[in-house]
Amino acid sequence: MYDVVTFGETMVRLSPPGQRRLEQTNTLEMGIGGTELNTACALSRLGRRVCWVSKLVDNALGRFIANKGREFGVDVGQIAWTGEGRVGTYFIEQAAQPRPISIIYDRRDSAITTLRPSEIDWPSLFQQARLFHTTGINPALGPNVARETKAAMAAAKEAGCKVSFDPNMRFNLWTVAEARRAFLELLPYVDVLFSPAEALDLFFDLKGEPIEAAQAARERWHLEVVVMGRRESLGQLRGAWSSLAVADQVCEGQRREFEVVDRIGAGDAYAAGFLHGYLDGDLAKGVAYGDALCVLKHTVPGDLPWLTMAEVEDLLAGGARSIRR
Amino acid sequence: MYDVVTFGETMVRLSPPGQRRLEQTNTLEMGIGGTELNTACALSRLGRRVCWVSKLVDNALGRFIANKGREFGVDVGQIAWTGEGRVGTYFIEQAAQPRPISIIYDRRDSAITTLRPSEIDWPSLFQQARLFHTTGINPALGPNVARETKAAMAAAKEAGCKVSFDPNMRFNLWTVAEARRAFLELLPYVDVLFSPAEALDLFFDLKGEPIEAAQAARERWHLEVVVMGRRESLGQLRGAWSSLAVADQVCEGQRREFEVVDRIGAGDAYAAGFLHGYLDGDLAKGVAYGDALCVLKHTVPGDLPWLTMAEVEDLLAGGARSIRR
Amino acid sequence: MYDVVTFGETMVRLSPPGQRRLEQTNTLEMGIGGTELNTACALSRLGRRVCWVSKLVDNALGRFIANKGREFGVDVGQIAWTGEGRVGTYFIEQAAQPRPISIIYDRRDSAITTLRPSEIDWPSLFQQARLFHTTGINPALGPNVARETKAAMAAAKEAGCKVSFDPNMRFNLWTVAEARRAFLELLPYVDVLFSPAEALDLFFDLKGEPIEAAQAARERWHLEVVVMGRRESLGQLRGAWSSLAVADQVCEGQRREFEVVDRIGAGDAYAAGFLHGYLDGDLAKGVAYGDALCVLKHTVPGDLPWLTMAEVEDLLAGGARSIRR
Amino acid sequence: MYDVVTFGETMVRLSPPGQRRLEQTNTLEMGIGGTELNTACALSRLGRRVCWVSKLVDNALGRFIANKGREFGVDVGQIAWTGEGRVGTYFIEQAAQPRPISIIYDRRDSAITTLRPSEIDWPSLFQQARLFHTTGINPALGPNVARETKAAMAAAKEAGCKVSFDPNMRFNLWTVAEARRAFLELLPYVDVLFSPAEALDLFFDLKGEPIEAAQAARERWHLEVVVMGRRESLGQLRGAWSSLAVADQVCEGQRREFEVVDRIGAGDAYAAGFLHGYLDGDLAKGVAYGDALCVLKHTVPGDLPWLTMAEVEDLLAGGARSIRR
Amino acid sequence: MYDVVTFGETMVRLSPPGQRRLEQTNTLEMGIGGTELNTACALSRLGRRVCWVSKLVDNALGRFIANKGREFGVDVGQIAWTGEGRVGTYFIEQAAQPRPISIIYDRRDSAITTLRPSEIDWPSLFQQARLFHTTGINPALGPNVARETKAAMAAAKEAGCKVSFDPNMRFNLWTVAEARRAFLELLPYVDVLFSPAEALDLFFDLKGEPIEAAQAARERWHLEVVVMGRRESLGQLRGAWSSLAVADQVCEGQRREFEVVDRIGAGDAYAAGFLHGYLDGDLAKGVAYGDALCVLKHTVPGDLPWLTMAEVEDLLAGGARSIRR
Amino acid sequence: MYDVVTFGETMVRLSPPGQRRLEQTNTLEMGIGGTELNTACALSRLGRRVCWVSKLVDNALGRFIANKGREFGVDVGQIAWTGEGRVGTYFIEQAAQPRPISIIYDRRDSAITTLRPSEIDWPSLFQQARLFHTTGINPALGPNVARETKAAMAAAKEAGCKVSFDPNMRFNLWTVAEARRAFLELLPYVDVLFSPAEALDLFFDLKGEPIEAAQAARERWHLEVVVMGRRESLGQLRGAWSSLAVADQVCEGQRREFEVVDRIGAGDAYAAGFLHGYLDGDLAKGVAYGDALCVLKHTVPGDLPWLTMAEVEDLLAGGARSIRR
Repeated sequence: MYDVVTFGETMVRLSPPGQRRLEQTNTLEMGIGGTELNTACALSRLGRRVCWVSKLVDNALGRFIANKGREFGVDVGQIAWTGEGRVGTYFIEQAAQPRPISIIYDRRDSAITTLRPSEIDWPSLFQQARLFHTTGINPALGPNVARETKAAMAAAKEAGCKVSFDPNMRFNLWTVAEARRAFLELLPYVDVLFSPAEALDLFFDLKGEPIEAAQAARERWHLEVVVMGRRESLGQLRGAWSSLAVADQVCEGQRREFEVVDRIGAGDAYAAGFLHGYLDGDLAKGVAYGDALCVLKHTVPGDLPWLTMAEVEDLLAGGARSIRR
Repeated sequence: MYDVVTFGETMVRLSPPGQRRLEQTNTLEMGIGGTELNTACALSRLGRRVCWVSKLVDNALGRFIANKGREFGVDVGQIAWTGEGRVGTYFIEQAAQPRPISIIYDRRDSAITTLRPSEIDWPSLFQQARLFHTTGINPALGPNVARETKAAMAAAKEAGCKVSFDPNMRFNLWTVAEARRAFLELLPYVDVLFSPAEALDLFFDLKGEPIEAAQAARERWHLEVVVMGRRESLGQLRGAWSSLAVADQVCEGQRREFEVVDRIGAGDAYAAGFLHGYLDGDLAKGVAYGDALCVLKHTVPGDLPWLTMAEVEDLLAGGARSIRR
Repeated sequence: MYDVVTFGETMVRLSPPGQRRLEQTNTLEMGIGGTELNTACALSRLGRRVCWVSKLVDNALGRFIANKGREFGVDVGQIAWTGEGRVGTYFIEQAAQPRPISIIYDRRDSAITTLRPSEIDWPSLFQQARLFHTTGINPALGPNVARETKAAMAAAKEAGCKVSFDPNMRFNLWTVAEARRAFLELLPYVDVLFSPAEALDLFFDLKGEPIEAAQAARERWHLEVVVMGRRESLGQLRGAWSSLAVADQVCEGQRREFEVVDRIGAGDAYAAGFLHGYLDGDLAKGVAYGDALCVLKHTVPGDLPWLTMAEVEDLLAGGARSIRR
Repeated sequence: MYDVVTFGETMVRLSPPGQRRLEQTNTLEMGIGGTELNTACALSRLGRRVCWVSKLVDNALGRFIANKGREFGVDVGQIAWTGEGRVGTYFIEQAAQPRPISIIYDRRDSAITTLRPSEIDWPSLFQQARLFHTTGINPALGPNVARETKAAMAAAKEAGCKVSFDPNMRFNLWTVAEARRAFLELLPYVDVLFSPAEALDLFFDLKGEPIEAAQAARERWHLEVVVMGRRESLGQLRGAWSSLAVADQVCEGQRREFEVVDRIGAGDAYAAGFLHGYLDGDLAKGVAYGDALCVLKHTVPGDLPWLTMAEVEDLLAGGARSIRR
Repeated sequence: MYDVVTFGETMVRLSPPGQRRLEQTNTLEMGIGGTELNTACALSRLGRRVCWVSKLVDNALGRFIANKGREFGVDVGQIAWTGEGRVGTYFIEQAAQPRPISIIYDRRDSAITTLRPSEIDWPSLFQQARLFHTTGINPALGPNVARETKAAMAAAKEAGCKVSFDPNMRFNLWTVAEARRAFLELLPYVDVLFSPAEALDLFFDLKGEPIEAAQAARERWHLEVVVMGRRESLGQLRGAWSSLAVADQVCEGQRREFEVVDRIGAGDAYAAGFLHGYLDGDLAKGVAYGDALCVLKHTVPGDLPWLTMAEVEDLLAGGARSIRR
Repeated sequence: MYDVVTFGETMVRLSPPGQRRLEQTNTLEMGIGGTELNTACALSRLGRRVCWVSKLVDNALGRFIANKGREFGVDVGQIAWTGEGRVGTYFIEQAAQPRPISIIYDRRDSAITTLRPSEIDWPSLFQQARLFHTTGINPALGPNVARETKAAMAAAKEAGCKVSFDPNMRFNLWTVAEARRAFLELLPYVDVLFSPAEALDLFFDLKGEPIEAAQAARERWHLEVVVMGRRESLGQLRGAWSSLAVADQVCEGQRREFEVVDRIGAGDAYAAGFLHGYLDGDLAKGVAYGDALCVLKHTVPGDLPWLTMAEVEDLLAGGARSIRR
């Protein structure tokens, strides 16, 4: 029995040490990253039973990814393995103001893009799950992943699972118009939508105050809740975060400043925190845990949320400890 | 002839690189750390003749610790060596706001906890010394170290040495009540007490303005001087420091902001700087050198004070140089 | 349902890079090591369902160990967690001829030594297992682990599980006489005994040709099979390995030379390979897989067997490929 | 004016440090590798003017490759740059006997596979060149590179350039039958063929003693010279090399043993050394320089030939120096 | 044909990782640094054809320097090579407030100080160049470099090249009085002078508002333009930059804040950006490109400007992107 | 009171990791090296009281060298410090057969070459010493060091100290003829001469069997003992060592093979081992300890002898242990 099933691609993540640039390095740090697995790992850290579904090549790189999921306690037993194809990679340069973080994705034609309908048995999977979470990167990965994403959402609904969706626009993968078309196909299945106000405007022309736009979105697609996060950049090395969840009532979190070690995966950690509360039927808890995980994730190198429940709870308890012996 | 003798435990210090977490690293930086040796090393850098007393295992880890003391010019010839037992270690994760620095101590039953009365000849040692410095961590390490700490203080007094004491409360080693009881046994021997106002309140119920509380403490235990430092945290990566010494008159230092590379050992460096002035009979100098060393130590990785007298004096001369060619 | 359950301690392993010595390094490589978990990891790599039982502290170091087991696909759900105590560590210096590899164990009073009878439910565990494997390090860790080892063996027998035992003498933990006494208590439960001829002589005064000594041992304790490995050292950087299994008939493996990257854990990998064949009722397969895993493990840094079934099978198929594209 | 033009793909090369395996590392060393650029770099080190032609993506990874060529003094001004597509990568694990070196190529659909006829102006290029060198990897990269390879050879011949070819079979890219067909299309243009005896047998059914087979090949395709290298593996950490050139007369080199740091690129260095002599019309010099470069390259990490003319000449002068101050 | 020729020394640059101090490190990062080559590299990155002239020892260190220049596309074919002498080095410790960055130069008697008149053919070189750029470090390196700097400027003028000069005072190499004397010999040849207001005052007693002082300097030495940059330090980890160019009219840039990764070489990058605009006859462009390069360089480790034209243009276009996928 | 005083230069040692070449690295390992300090450190490890005399610059590099001596327990209190000048450095590339180890010395004009007669008070120093050891590198460093070396030897003799000398020819510093002339000036003071047979032939035309040549040398210069070591190279990664001491009787050591991690400093360790026995009046012990230290040093990275008395004694006791727990 799973609390959450997530579905999507994970890549090998390669980054020069410190703020070095790719052209000047001769070593790279190797990790993994993929929004849906990032969220799964954070949920597992919060004590949830989680399964991550994907397709991987059976070589050292594919095993590297599955190993890390397993290390976090995520069930990787539903992955479709293949002897062919490639594992996607991405190269990331950390930065300092005013230089932007720079990412080169090399994920074209990775194994997941070859996923065939027979490879994942969605109906069986969702019989033992409470919630299905995925993101808008999937349909951008090509027709096979787009089709399976929709099939998975449909199967989840059919099985009585909740469906959670984070559009996560990637301008390098497709256009806004393409994304809008894809999202409109998926939204009918969605219960929990993660979306900042600007995205509601950009994709769906829902203008106005955030809460109004969110209520309009809820109405249009019969969403249970719209979750809106806001990241403020104070240089590359500092930032602030706040969020709110709009359902029949509105839950608003607390704005928190933080120092940035690695911002990648912070939104994915937020989603995990929110869903943790949502699964308990407590949106305020969701906002609080989401905020805490998001802020803490900014302090951890890599995509993955190397955090503990104790640390999250300490932060929520208002503890401003700077050292913990 | 020693200017200062210090006594206490030093551990092997193990830390992941950068802001990495222990669970995600596969390399560690290896150093040493122990408050009394940290202070001894800083005093040696200021040109003082210093001896550090402890007990160590005669294996590569024990030698590693003694080697580093020797590297700093500290006399390690009075260490009690043993073929048995273990060297304490501690694991430290640096952090970024709002994540706290996290320390796992693994010092239980380390060699120093087995120190027997015959192993250190305190009376002889103090015949050739001017001041004895130690901290409140010692009595927290168990009955043997507690007994030897008291014996050492008594022998120092007997020999006409000054005694300096920094309570350095460690909540993970004992309770406030236990600490209070231990400190009360030691305070009759003390001439120089390092203690922030909050500690005076916490341990001895000395409330009120810092200077008043310090004067009350002086009176109660016939202290020569109470030295009070104050660290302000501006995130994990910035801070500010100021201090004052309360004797018949009050010497107040200058508040200074700094960027933080590693805050561990900064208080120990302060103590060294203060004692350097105190040994010259100049409390204002003590406060100034203490402040300068403390602030500069925050910019150096590790526990140890890799600083030079020239750097300290440059800072005191008001030089705001940002580059030194 | 588990194919194999193993039980024992795993430590954090700390080693200077390359052939550096502890006294001269300021970085360490961090991994884990423990003979029974090493064997469990190798069995998991061969496709076996494996559970490793131990007791760990719930801090970053304890999680680090459990994470790695999980990364290898070993079930760590039966571990007893504690908020108290310490995680054992060991420091290892690799070497070059004629300098010996040097290991400093710091495992005294680690969490597993505090194991209480109620903490592991052995009978339930073995109802779903085929074989229980452990080593002679356990009884050397103190009375609690000794008692639990015997209790586990008895429960395994009771449940119809096979029991496999590798004496793995550690002269730094106890004397031969102490070990003999402990082993004699355990041998009545054992089906599969790993023991070189010298150990049979040393502990049990079984002299003579290896095969004769093994047969004598089988008779004395009603063992199903005695497995004997032989490591030849050709400097620190080269070696050779051969083994044989003595049951009603004798299966002898092939002598193979290898280049040494890290010899630690090679015997544990051998045990895994042998048990893999044994579980299929095929001792010759056991010897072959044991030999292959043992030899290949020597080429992999760290305790853990980062190898694949395909690599093992390639070697057994006689492939002398030096490059695999 | 170029002495040599080479054409082919170069990839980003990623390798775990030491003999670590990909699954167990979290750092990679980053370099580049591609047989034709490797050869170009070695020729530049010997003082030859060299141009390397390829197609690269204009991002940090593409620039990384061109930068390294430039660092070696190779002209990279003829590269076709594109804003689209991807840079090929390869992951390599070094090994120890009996574990094979393991390589994962991830080069599918890299920029060079999209090369269009108009992108390189071969006729102009060869008007200023003496020799064109390429390998059998090119036609294996797909129809575009195959077509351009043939076009380049034809243009070289037309312009009076010599053509040198190293079949360099990659079983993971295509079958022997496919390779044979492709090679047969190219051989009519070739003057200098690098090919061990086994390859002559495998591809062209030229059996018998190496020299006979080579003479048969020369006759069949009107080759000027067939160059045959032989690598003996003495474990993964030692080897031996010898070669001979078969023309109207036969030049045979000296067998040399060596210690292996990195064997990748040693054959490419050989080709450079041989061509250096060949361009001087001196096959014996070619064999000698080829042997020396090949053997020395085995001692250098990475694909690239970080060697100097002085080192090559020292070795050829018979100097068995073990230290050079 | 070169757009710009620069002339000066480049050293091997050695720095401890992070904010470590030299006394506590056992690894160093190795790079190169030299103001005139830094500027040349930045100009090459902007698409300019650049040649850097110097004198180097023909050993691995000398080649290391030339390699890096070549890697950046700078022509290093005019370097005078010598078999004798030494390559200068410098050791740099990064810092944190209030600790200053600390640099130990070890450049005495390096190869360039032995430059003889016959070694560089200045007249020929400048026949194919538009602008000559050098700095005040040259005359401080001793009589040979001083003489050649003047000879080069004279030859440049003679050939109709523009001459650009950055005084770049180094107090550790000479006194203000010595520098003034040297600069006064060179200024008659200069068209473009880089100099902050304080330097105009310090060297030439030109007081008053920056723009007035600059106009006075223009008048006195018939300068075409005086370029004045201003760096504000906000701790060691943040700063701000602004600049202006004073010609017949004044072009003023925009003040920009930045986070500091490595400030060394930022002024050299500024010079490159300014000259890029100047060569197009557009001082406003020069100020804008100079500012952008200077600010971006602060975010890149090392002396060298690992930046792209695209990044510079993005910044100038006002893009405040914090991530670029 | 010192057992041994040594005198000479120590440099900062910089080496690329592994077998990397200088041109291809961007990190260096930083250590120190100098034959006389190497020997002093080994003597200190054997329990001898040792003083090393030199001249150093008072900057981070000079302190780095003194720190390391102190770390080894060597008295560095007699060093002459200067605010001027430079610290010598050397760059070393490790190698693999047939590539030679490559060393670039950059020691010209280092601080020690400026040593003036007044700076070291030799007569006082030798009043508290038993033996003075130095090498033939000193006179090669220029007239000041040559003069002081002779002055020191004379003072030592005068004070009744023994004098030990290792010619240690450096062909890059001077010619054989120059060395011969210098050595002939020093030999009259020498009691213990380290010199392989080839050196006796090369410098002094003492031909014939090693023992005969040694006896001739003893006679000619009234030497007490001539010590002759012989290193056989078995590739760069293996070697063998043997030695003998020729006095009135001949003591011959045992030939031992070893694996090479770093051969630099092995001869210096030999000298320390020999002198350790010599100081006990036991030449056989000297040969045995010299051999053991020399062989063990080959297994330790860097110049310095990170070894323990226990390890030396284990080896001498014939222990062929390959692992020490």
